[in-house]
Amino acid sequence: MRKYVIAIDLGGTNIKIAVVKDGRKIVNKIILPTDLYKNKGALINGLSQLSLEIIKYSKIKKRDILGIGIGTPGLIDSRRGIIHRLVNIKGFKDVPLKRLMEKKTGIQTFLDNDVNIMTLGELHYGAGRGAKNMVCITLGTGVGGGIVIDGRLYRGSCLSAGEIGHMPLNEHGPRCNCGGFGCMEKFVGNKYIIGAAVTKIKKGKKSIIKKMVGGDLRKITPEIISRAAGNRDRLAVSIWEDVGSHLGVTLAGVINLLNPEKIVIGGGVSGAGRLLFETIRKTVKERAMKMPAKYAKIVKAKLGPDAGLIGAAVLVRLGKNDAN
Amino acid sequence: MRKYVIAIDLGGTNIKIAVVKDGRKIVNKIILPTDLYKNKGALINGLSQLSLEIIKYSKIKKRDILGIGIGTPGLIDSRRGIIHRLVNIKGFKDVPLKRLMEKKTGIQTFLDNDVNIMTLGELHYGAGRGAKNMVCITLGTGVGGGIVIDGRLYRGSCLSAGEIGHMPLNEHGPRCNCGGFGCMEKFVGNKYIIGAAVTKIKKGKKSIIKKMVGGDLRKITPEIISRAAGNRDRLAVSIWEDVGSHLGVTLAGVINLLNPEKIVIGGGVSGAGRLLFETIRKTVKERAMKMPAKYAKIVKAKLGPDAGLIGAAVLVRLGKNDAN
Repeated sequence: MRKYVIAIDLGGTNIKIAVVKDGRKIVNKIILPTDLYKNKGALINGLSQLSLEIIKYSKIKKRDILGIGIGTPGLIDSRRGIIHRLVNIKGFKDVPLKRLMEKKTGIQTFLDNDVNIMTLGELHYGAGRGAKNMVCITLGTGVGGGIVIDGRLYRGSCLSAGEIGHMPLNEHGPRCNCGGFGCMEKFVGNKYIIGAAVTKIKKGKKSIIKKMVGGDLRKITPEIISRAAGNRDRLAVSIWEDVGSHLGVTLAGVINLLNPEKIVIGGGVSGAGRLLFETIRKTVKERAMKMPAKYAKIVKAKLGPDAGLIGAAVLVRLGKNDAN
Repeated sequence: MRKYVIAIDLGGTNIKIAVVKDGRKIVNKIILPTDLYKNKGALINGLSQLSLEIIKYSKIKKRDILGIGIGTPGLIDSRRGIIHRLVNIKGFKDVPLKRLMEKKTGIQTFLDNDVNIMTLGELHYGAGRGAKNMVCITLGTGVGGGIVIDGRLYRGSCLSAGEIGHMPLNEHGPRCNCGGFGCMEKFVGNKYIIGAAVTKIKKGKKSIIKKMVGGDLRKITPEIISRAAGNRDRLAVSIWEDVGSHLGVTLAGVINLLNPEKIVIGGGVSGAGRLLFETIRKTVKERAMKMPAKYAKIVKAKLGPDAGLIGAAVLVRLGKNDAN
């Protein structure tokens, strides 16, 4: 039985390549900065070479590899295995990465965007285990979403489903990069969170955040605001309550529409923890319809920084099953 | 082959009972006022008696009937065939209508709410034919929704999915009956539409609507506002543009989230026609993400007043298939 998978998490900052065994066990892992590769050709060569090398290093035979799974934040055609766009890498436009990787490694390859990959990981090995209908959210600079319907990842009619960050929260709200107005992301994305802290501190609100960054407000990050909230800093607490409330309103709508049994929230900001989750749950309870609200468990993602690798391994196994 | 279905559209105002042949052909139909039946027992007796009588009248043998399909606006457990609540009928609470109908008629019975039934009808014989992923919306006093995923009706984890009317459009909007705030229904439901016309006319805005209702503003209906808009009445036009814009904003969010290939809009208000649909499409184009927006066709429901009967017939055939 082929029990190994090569999982690749192709991020904007780092690339992780791992051998994953028995579903979710990471045997060996390479981490390197993405900008080590200056162009498209170098990146594809690097990915295929390192895949073959980590197989050798792990003393596995190539025929024991089920496949290569790749997750990236780009715009992806998961069906044909094409990356339409990938930020940070020069010339990376409409690249048939699946075909190229298969040619260079001789191993069947599968691609999907990082949020779908994380959703698969959480569904099979994380906080979403056993869920039939689930929504997975990643918080960060952007707010992404993955949808599970009837135990399977739902990709939509042109593979773009899940953009929960771009559901309108206020029809007359501020313009969003996506072209819409008042999108949820504008109220819970990192930029908003940091901006809220900076503005309030500049206005003279007292907060330990200022001391934590040595007076340099440009150094404020969501993690720092989280730590400040952990120390009961009132400004930081109010920011997380605000974010939780916005998230809760959008989730109330999603719960009314999709009636999922689980909502899994991950990504950097989800580290704000208890306070954030309590506010989200309270807002959903206040605003969503009673029956579906009672049914929807809102939980924190479990897999942490390796979610992308574990999910990529799931993608390969599911892809092989579909093909058979 | 059993090719006939008894379809029942159990509405708040009227009950329709029909023999449906070959999928969608209505052979015979009975229409009667719902309040003919003063209580639960009388209604159930009436439904089963009339079902048996329309079979006789149509000169069909009972063994040629595939099943009875019932659609109603109540709160329904479609899996167990229970109506939890039905407005207008005294004592209609947690009624196992499926079991009772089967006992009284000897014919297998299936239930679902009217919006899901309409969605099934449009999917199989109406504007949604051939769609894999689709959202169906009914406009009226309330705003309902049905979701099709991968060619099948999606009911959600506790069978309450599809409440598109209760997705928030403005987080600080007015309180809704459902408990939420700023729900889409509050901006496009009949009450809102009529209220907008009344308020504006009272404020002195000129409109032919006033003449159309003989000066009695209580007589204003969405249909009258539609007709006025058809005559280029500026007040009426502005109301439909407003409704279309609110609907478009919510649909932009639904398109970003679900990436459906079709959105079917039906119900009384959809009669406002071209003006309403043009505004919806324009707003979606302006606000939804480009790729999924391009992919999502927004169309008017096709089946009209018999949608409930045709959909109920589909429900029976699907139910029989699932059981086999």
